[in-house]
Amino acid sequence: MPTYSSQFPDPIALVTVATKTRTNVMTVGWASPVSSKPPILMVSVAPRRFTHDLILEAGEFGLSILANDQKKLSELAGTLTGSKVDKLAKPEFETFDAEKIRAPLIKGARAWFECTLHSHQTVGDHTVFYGAVLKTRVDETKSPLVLFHRRYYALGEERGVYP
Amino acid sequence: MPTYSSQFPDPIALVTVATKTRTNVMTVGWASPVSSKPPILMVSVAPRRFTHDLILEAGEFGLSILANDQKKLSELAGTLTGSKVDKLAKPEFETFDAEKIRAPLIKGARAWFECTLHSHQTVGDHTVFYGAVLKTRVDETKSPLVLFHRRYYALGEERGVYP
Repeated sequence: MPTYSSQFPDPIALVTVATKTRTNVMTVGWASPVSSKPPILMVSVAPRRFTHDLILEAGEFGLSILANDQKKLSELAGTLTGSKVDKLAKPEFETFDAEKIRAPLIKGARAWFECTLHSHQTVGDHTVFYGAVLKTRVDETKSPLVLFHRRYYALGEERGVYP
Repeated sequence: MPTYSSQFPDPIALVTVATKTRTNVMTVGWASPVSSKPPILMVSVAPRRFTHDLILEAGEFGLSILANDQKKLSELAGTLTGSKVDKLAKPEFETFDAEKIRAPLIKGARAWFECTLHSHQTVGDHTVFYGAVLKTRVDETKSPLVLFHRRYYALGEERGVYP
């Protein structure tokens, strides 16, 4: 049976988190809105990830939806581990201060969400973190990066407006 | 503040469900993998949707990831309600039988998942349904439809392989 999860066109987003003593960034593809009012989104993170316990400790996280020219950041944040490397100290990650949370956000992205941890739940081999969105920022000049079938894509031809 | 949810590049998928007495189909954009082993995905559905209680009654559902030439099906399944119209009786919806579940699947899609209901949870104004994936089918000749910022897109230029 083919890997089911590769069949979803996914956003590529960077989760940022900061406790009083540590910051980290990791790449997620399993992220989605789940509620309109109040605005709540979800990200699914494996417990072995360094970021996992940092989110629990901080009680909040940032999410930066990467633009289609930021593949390099997805690779860096997805293949290094915060247990060995201070990824956000690398020059490739340019950040700016969030307004409502301690974690920084990633410059050059398409959109940014500042979230407080609403709740979390173990589902299979991952933890689903629900984040209540405290603030949204958008750069309308950027277009998002999409992951599908283990390859990165830009958005292509527009096929019309959602009714 | 801009609508946060429109900033995610979303898949466009059709949820199909069948109880002993009714079948229905609805469009979802808020769908994502959440667990690898076992394979579990999530779809977020508003309680006012006709499909919502059908999923609870059936205890299972199908998910068809639409191909980039199936925008019309997304519109039909997303704007009509099963409480007034038997959408799957419309000629536009061509279906085939699933193997593990009662609900039919939608012909011409990119991928199909047959799910048994793992659990569900109210999150804000939606219900998150977790589906344990019993069977995955893929049509590698199709490319998925993506929704972003309230517009439909095909995938565009490939930007490399995920590491």
